[in-house]
Amino acid sequence: MARLKLGMVGGGQGAFIGAVHRIASRIDDRFELVAGALSSDPDRASASASELSIAQDRSYASFIDMAKAEATRPDGIDVVSIVTPNHMHAAPVIAFLEAGIHVICDKPLCTTEEEEAAIAEAVDASSAKFILTHNYTGYPLIRHAREMVARGDLGKIRVVQAEYAQDWLTEPLEQTGQKQASWRTDPARAGGGGAIGDIGTHAFNLLSFVTGLRTEALTADLQSFGEGRAVDDNAHIMLRLAKGARGMLWASQVAVGQENALRLRIFGEKGGLAWQQENPNRMKLSLYGEPTRTLTRGGPGFDERSGDWTRIPPGHPEGYLEGFANIYSDAADLISGAADGSLLPGIEAGLDGMWFIRACIASSKADGSWIKRDFKK
Amino acid sequence: MARLKLGMVGGGQGAFIGAVHRIASRIDDRFELVAGALSSDPDRASASASELSIAQDRSYASFIDMAKAEATRPDGIDVVSIVTPNHMHAAPVIAFLEAGIHVICDKPLCTTEEEEAAIAEAVDASSAKFILTHNYTGYPLIRHAREMVARGDLGKIRVVQAEYAQDWLTEPLEQTGQKQASWRTDPARAGGGGAIGDIGTHAFNLLSFVTGLRTEALTADLQSFGEGRAVDDNAHIMLRLAKGARGMLWASQVAVGQENALRLRIFGEKGGLAWQQENPNRMKLSLYGEPTRTLTRGGPGFDERSGDWTRIPPGHPEGYLEGFANIYSDAADLISGAADGSLLPGIEAGLDGMWFIRACIASSKADGSWIKRDFKK
Amino acid sequence: MARLKLGMVGGGQGAFIGAVHRIASRIDDRFELVAGALSSDPDRASASASELSIAQDRSYASFIDMAKAEATRPDGIDVVSIVTPNHMHAAPVIAFLEAGIHVICDKPLCTTEEEEAAIAEAVDASSAKFILTHNYTGYPLIRHAREMVARGDLGKIRVVQAEYAQDWLTEPLEQTGQKQASWRTDPARAGGGGAIGDIGTHAFNLLSFVTGLRTEALTADLQSFGEGRAVDDNAHIMLRLAKGARGMLWASQVAVGQENALRLRIFGEKGGLAWQQENPNRMKLSLYGEPTRTLTRGGPGFDERSGDWTRIPPGHPEGYLEGFANIYSDAADLISGAADGSLLPGIEAGLDGMWFIRACIASSKADGSWIKRDFKK
Amino acid sequence: MARLKLGMVGGGQGAFIGAVHRIASRIDDRFELVAGALSSDPDRASASASELSIAQDRSYASFIDMAKAEATRPDGIDVVSIVTPNHMHAAPVIAFLEAGIHVICDKPLCTTEEEEAAIAEAVDASSAKFILTHNYTGYPLIRHAREMVARGDLGKIRVVQAEYAQDWLTEPLEQTGQKQASWRTDPARAGGGGAIGDIGTHAFNLLSFVTGLRTEALTADLQSFGEGRAVDDNAHIMLRLAKGARGMLWASQVAVGQENALRLRIFGEKGGLAWQQENPNRMKLSLYGEPTRTLTRGGPGFDERSGDWTRIPPGHPEGYLEGFANIYSDAADLISGAADGSLLPGIEAGLDGMWFIRACIASSKADGSWIKRDFKK
Repeated sequence: MARLKLGMVGGGQGAFIGAVHRIASRIDDRFELVAGALSSDPDRASASASELSIAQDRSYASFIDMAKAEATRPDGIDVVSIVTPNHMHAAPVIAFLEAGIHVICDKPLCTTEEEEAAIAEAVDASSAKFILTHNYTGYPLIRHAREMVARGDLGKIRVVQAEYAQDWLTEPLEQTGQKQASWRTDPARAGGGGAIGDIGTHAFNLLSFVTGLRTEALTADLQSFGEGRAVDDNAHIMLRLAKGARGMLWASQVAVGQENALRLRIFGEKGGLAWQQENPNRMKLSLYGEPTRTLTRGGPGFDERSGDWTRIPPGHPEGYLEGFANIYSDAADLISGAADGSLLPGIEAGLDGMWFIRACIASSKADGSWIKRDFKK
Repeated sequence: MARLKLGMVGGGQGAFIGAVHRIASRIDDRFELVAGALSSDPDRASASASELSIAQDRSYASFIDMAKAEATRPDGIDVVSIVTPNHMHAAPVIAFLEAGIHVICDKPLCTTEEEEAAIAEAVDASSAKFILTHNYTGYPLIRHAREMVARGDLGKIRVVQAEYAQDWLTEPLEQTGQKQASWRTDPARAGGGGAIGDIGTHAFNLLSFVTGLRTEALTADLQSFGEGRAVDDNAHIMLRLAKGARGMLWASQVAVGQENALRLRIFGEKGGLAWQQENPNRMKLSLYGEPTRTLTRGGPGFDERSGDWTRIPPGHPEGYLEGFANIYSDAADLISGAADGSLLPGIEAGLDGMWFIRACIASSKADGSWIKRDFKK
Repeated sequence: MARLKLGMVGGGQGAFIGAVHRIASRIDDRFELVAGALSSDPDRASASASELSIAQDRSYASFIDMAKAEATRPDGIDVVSIVTPNHMHAAPVIAFLEAGIHVICDKPLCTTEEEEAAIAEAVDASSAKFILTHNYTGYPLIRHAREMVARGDLGKIRVVQAEYAQDWLTEPLEQTGQKQASWRTDPARAGGGGAIGDIGTHAFNLLSFVTGLRTEALTADLQSFGEGRAVDDNAHIMLRLAKGARGMLWASQVAVGQENALRLRIFGEKGGLAWQQENPNRMKLSLYGEPTRTLTRGGPGFDERSGDWTRIPPGHPEGYLEGFANIYSDAADLISGAADGSLLPGIEAGLDGMWFIRACIASSKADGSWIKRDFKK
Repeated sequence: MARLKLGMVGGGQGAFIGAVHRIASRIDDRFELVAGALSSDPDRASASASELSIAQDRSYASFIDMAKAEATRPDGIDVVSIVTPNHMHAAPVIAFLEAGIHVICDKPLCTTEEEEAAIAEAVDASSAKFILTHNYTGYPLIRHAREMVARGDLGKIRVVQAEYAQDWLTEPLEQTGQKQASWRTDPARAGGGGAIGDIGTHAFNLLSFVTGLRTEALTADLQSFGEGRAVDDNAHIMLRLAKGARGMLWASQVAVGQENALRLRIFGEKGGLAWQQENPNRMKLSLYGEPTRTLTRGGPGFDERSGDWTRIPPGHPEGYLEGFANIYSDAADLISGAADGSLLPGIEAGLDGMWFIRACIASSKADGSWIKRDFKK
């Protein structure tokens, strides 16, 4: 199968998530990275391109130039990955969509309501596809869980417990100049949210993806424990989901001993399930009145479509990068018309996440008032 | 050492928690059960007494008679265990306290504010001791955790995550006439709370015990998922504790696959810990920047006072009954003057729990308003 | 139900296992400790008796006197617990059996073939019962496993993996004078075996109990890693069981980080199970082609007879002492004629263990020759 | 960095391990697959090449032709991966080594002593490198463990417990014509060993790699439980390692409920460690007298060289493919001269594995005699 031609905006030397996107794009060999605006610093952009075997004439100093040039080249890129910090998502996303080039964008969608509206409009107006890398939805057992819920294995959903805990901001790391800490705790660059935007949105997206239920209201209590920190680093949230389901969500970057402890538990009238990102190849499934079962990725009871989502036999662990690669490979299928991409997070997931961040901040400021979502907007 | 003479109110044939109290009292051989008002039904009281080798002349049809008679016998009981349903705690507790007989009472304290005030007054007025069996505080590693927090191993406490999940009320079991389900879901007999009173108070007590922090305010979202159920069977609660700490508490009796999943996680500026009641002989301790350690009951790093709280070497599990026995044995020490009982839950823990139940109900009715505690009351 | 009158030989001040037997006897309130020859030192015997509320006229300086006196008293003991070191089991066991008093004896049976033969003969000749406290067979899930195997849930058994690992003899503790280490590493007092006798016999007993298969041959490689240690502290053993099943058994007292890591895994043509003593309230059950299930003590799928073996609901852990108590309570049933004691380890289990120890030593000396068991002996 | 040009022998349509090698080669973008003799069937070879974007003029019907042609092309391959079944390793390995092309070969080395000698000779004679994909040595925590042992963290090694358990041959799958089962249970194609060759060699390699100790003798008890199976499907093995260490090794393909349960535990005078392949991002480390620590890949206490072996932060799991990719990326470093490849398994590991298989068969045939290794050979 011919590889799709991929470009990248951001992700130059010193960046983190760009390298992850590149590995994810390579694992199933569906993409070839051929162009980039890897840094706003021209020298760094050029040096980064060299390292990645991108031809110098396709290393751009500006994403605007890149969108224009690639859209007109006969061998121009099919799709671009946007891996800049949150506050620099909107402009390139819109530029490439307008140029008719498919977009894969890192999450969260953006940082302001204005950007959000503009992106949504651009997605609407473009024939190109828009994919948001809420990558945890790429884990095979998470997709299996979604199927189980959808077909009623758990019965009507009652309770959702979601959490994403880290400890890397336990101390005021941003004061040391550490790059990741700096922009992620800067309200201007990260959006108003700290932990809620960086990781809370992942937990929120995951619970929405698996339950298939939208959240109708939330109340939040946000804290900034780190000395001098301007954004939340710990968030306690209660949720009211559609159809009477209720949830709790905890996001923390000061939970000592936690690395990337994203956990999801869902309970319905007939069953419950539990999953942890740090050991993603297992999921507990409890049907009422029966012993709890441990499902394994690709093992007994795993969904028939497993072949689409895993590469190796059960018991040989796949991890974060393979889950991320599932997003990329599904994107390749969607773009090439081989599949409808129904599992891929897109603009709706992005708007959900933006509402989540805003509502958390608003509720916390209003001493915990329930913030309802107006779905007509 | 001479055994203390023990009486019991409630706990006759068909009861559950009475048998647990009796085993707990026997494990360390510090008590001898010699009297009882085991049932309000005289025949059942008498038959129950026979089964338990209680002499018939010390099997009473009423706890009033029992308090009076035992207080005047030269060989009268030293201490009485009250193991009746919640709404029948207050009267016997007060009767025995007034008779100068020490009282060990099952939790929660009672069901109404009037009872609560009356008990508090009786405790104040009596020279007898009052112990409330928040038995999970008897687990050795929980006591060790309290010590660790108190001496600052975790630094200033920031975040508490507590939960107690069961699934036995997933279906409307109370409609089948099952005795435990019937009274525990009956607002009149259980108090206004369902899950919050039955198990939420345990989680609340445990987090208070370990952190040493009182809760200043809470907001709650209570649900009754079971068809026709008059009390909550699932509760989502957010807490504001003293000194700026924040918490979440989840109590559920409809979480399919959960048996008695009482879990506590505490995070401070320097460390975090995690413990689960179902495997209580292990606790995770994370100090910032160091690998997580697994502490074991009696194993390396366990508190020097371990000898007081465990009976067998590490790796040989002690369980629920031994934790409960620690409450009884500490009560024996307190009553006999061998120790000051500083770890024993008493009237304060009982009042805390009553406030917790009332505040949860009030907040939930007020759509999640934060309910503050007035500590002057 | 009237309590049985219990005596004890050994278990005075400074002893360990005696206290465990006493707690186990109390938990279900089926025994009353009324007599003892608690120490060969008369002063210690008397002081120990006082501590245990044993009347001075029933505290004996010699077990010979005790057997004689108790057998003739109208209120003499029904049953005696022998909790002396291994090399002092035989004489009291035989004395009480000859006096017609039931015997509960700690394991292993004894230390020499002569003692073994004498005990077997005494058991044969006496109308009194003989119970050996291979206490791990008292764990409810172990009994459930035995039932599952017996009724064919796992199919024909193929492979058994058993191990018992500790680390308390990692360093030459016996050279410090520590009492438990001293006698357990002394060939004269412990029997020829070290780890194989002390803990290997437990693992061997457990696998025999659960599979219902006797071992026909074994090969062993014994090591003494501790400096100057005269008995094995680590043992590697391969087993050939009846009906073509094969096994491995590892016993170690130098496995750093292991406390009482007794583990059993059994695999048959249709299923497999796995259990660990340190968290004994759970067992993994795998049926071929189905997800692995986690059985819990008393939970879904647990044997109907659970009521006989547990005291509290699933999710509230029972531990080592309750498992031990099951042996005592079954013994009470057997002695009182309420049950046939079919699950209780007796003289056969004792002889099996003695063969195991001898065969391990013989095989290791013969550089790993397979030692066959002659079942006619 | 310029990519190395990679060829492949075997791995065409319907094969399994070839795809794994290809993904592993892509993850870090150090290789470009440009040539192949993917199948001995010319049509399948050609079709497979097309699928993999290999130019038709570099798709060969025979590896002999391929070695010759690629060695003389100016843009010929730098390195070839041999991913044929075991009995077809030797010829291509030798052909490419003789052609001066570096070789990455799947394990085990081959199937006969003659092949083994010929390969060893070819490796000796060639200036090209030879790498054997004992891929589990690529897991970061396994490499960290090797470092810990080498620098003495555990003290002198005493005991090794290794196992690799699967259940996929529980039933006689080879009789259904399943391709993987067919060749792996065919003595001619797999070598004389079944489980011992297929997975036992991995466990043996892993324990050797981590301890740095060679095995001096072993005794084995091999079984074939599957009906009509000609090779072992379960193996019990005891080991004597250098410097007095002893070990046990269990390999099974009939252990119901086990997927790829490769586990390693190592105990020394001062410490112990435990690791499981199915959750490879965690390792337990116990130092005597201290609580057990859980090390995480990249987390606190992890070796400084972590940056070389992992791609993403701790808590985001890496799996089997990333471990495999470490072998490939190290091979790229070795071939390009950037590193000395000291961690890469090569011909010695291959010869060790062949001895292991032969010794297991010989010992089992000789009723468990210890088979000593003659290191002079």
